[in-house]
Amino acid sequence: MIEQETYKQHISTQFNAELEGVKNSLLEMGGNVERQVNDAVDCLVKMDTGQAEVVIDRDHAVNQMEVSIDEECSRILARRQPAASDLRLVLTVTKITTDLERIGDEAAKIARQCIRISEAAASPSNYVEIKHIGNYVVGMLQKALDAFARLDVELAVEVVKADKTVDKEYRSAMRSLVTFMMEDPRVIGSVLNEMWALKSLERVGDHTSNIAEHVIYLVRGLDVRHVELEELISQVEESH
Amino acid sequence: MIEQETYKQHISTQFNAELEGVKNSLLEMGGNVERQVNDAVDCLVKMDTGQAEVVIDRDHAVNQMEVSIDEECSRILARRQPAASDLRLVLTVTKITTDLERIGDEAAKIARQCIRISEAAASPSNYVEIKHIGNYVVGMLQKALDAFARLDVELAVEVVKADKTVDKEYRSAMRSLVTFMMEDPRVIGSVLNEMWALKSLERVGDHTSNIAEHVIYLVRGLDVRHVELEELISQVEESH
Repeated sequence: MIEQETYKQHISTQFNAELEGVKNSLLEMGGNVERQVNDAVDCLVKMDTGQAEVVIDRDHAVNQMEVSIDEECSRILARRQPAASDLRLVLTVTKITTDLERIGDEAAKIARQCIRISEAAASPSNYVEIKHIGNYVVGMLQKALDAFARLDVELAVEVVKADKTVDKEYRSAMRSLVTFMMEDPRVIGSVLNEMWALKSLERVGDHTSNIAEHVIYLVRGLDVRHVELEELISQVEESH
Repeated sequence: MIEQETYKQHISTQFNAELEGVKNSLLEMGGNVERQVNDAVDCLVKMDTGQAEVVIDRDHAVNQMEVSIDEECSRILARRQPAASDLRLVLTVTKITTDLERIGDEAAKIARQCIRISEAAASPSNYVEIKHIGNYVVGMLQKALDAFARLDVELAVEVVKADKTVDKEYRSAMRSLVTFMMEDPRVIGSVLNEMWALKSLERVGDHTSNIAEHVIYLVRGLDVRHVELEELISQVEESH
């Protein structure tokens, strides 16, 4: 009887270690992706094509992490058949890997824009909007990953809110770029590249907001993916 | 003993029905999303803002299907603890729902572009590229869903191949739109809207290619998400 108990404990310790392992791998992937976005914005602002090449290169490592974390998740599901919150953790991790991988893709796209801009005419802008929105979404991503690490629903809600700010600033930056183009058609080519980079940052904000929504699902069991912000806040408060 | 067998059979029949159910729900969601893309392209080409409103409205239904299919998948995982190919099916379905939902989002974005263009100046184009690429990606999506329904790996590989064609045509269409803008800066605003719609279609192609890759994983157990096309083809051939 005692032996059986010890065996059960052993299994459960191993299982917990596996869950911790997959959680840590996801946070490591998140840290890498955060650095990718940060460096991509940085290389665009400084027009540093050397750093842009590094960002593009490192995207493969991010992709590999997605594949290996998803593999580990299926292995856990097959072997351990987790239930309740353990099952939610595994499912959440495999949803978040997808968003992180897409954020990595957008970082690589920004790095490619940097190279393209440097090959074209001189830059028409100091990328003030890109720098600003870029820093903002990197901060959001940090918060979303913290919210996952600490199972912090309030922080996750903050991230979802912050995405509304990104969308607003994105639209206003786009409007001023359109005006800029109309005033001086010679800059159309380079302003378009800047627009694509801005669009990528806006996508990073969306994916980061998705990650925050997954954290809310993980902690509270609420699927708030297509819920308006106000409704989301009241659902989260009620579920407390 | 016989009773126990009957009971087991009963459970397994129920389980199979649940798996069939979730598969059919995914195909239904896929059918809806296919119609959304088709109608979005159609309303843009015909500048039909009434139809555009319908597309935007129906996006909620697509979102709801994502949530309910994912919920059903977690329920199956929790209750049935599927293994091997059954587990792969459930995991694949929850990955595909994400891609289908994003395709639905892009369709709604195209519909919103249609309304924006109609509110602005007269259209500068007959949207020949949009029509062409739009029809092409709708066809791809049909094939990807067929590949899922019939577990047809060859068809899935065709879809991944087709996405390369989309990317090529997208780049060439973009180049000609940039030239168009430079030649006549008065059309900048409306050509930009056309560019965003094209960009959405290119994203639809990407997500459809992801769906095809998930089908390959489902049937062969191969994760080919970040594998180059040639390597993917040879991996699929070897796994036969």
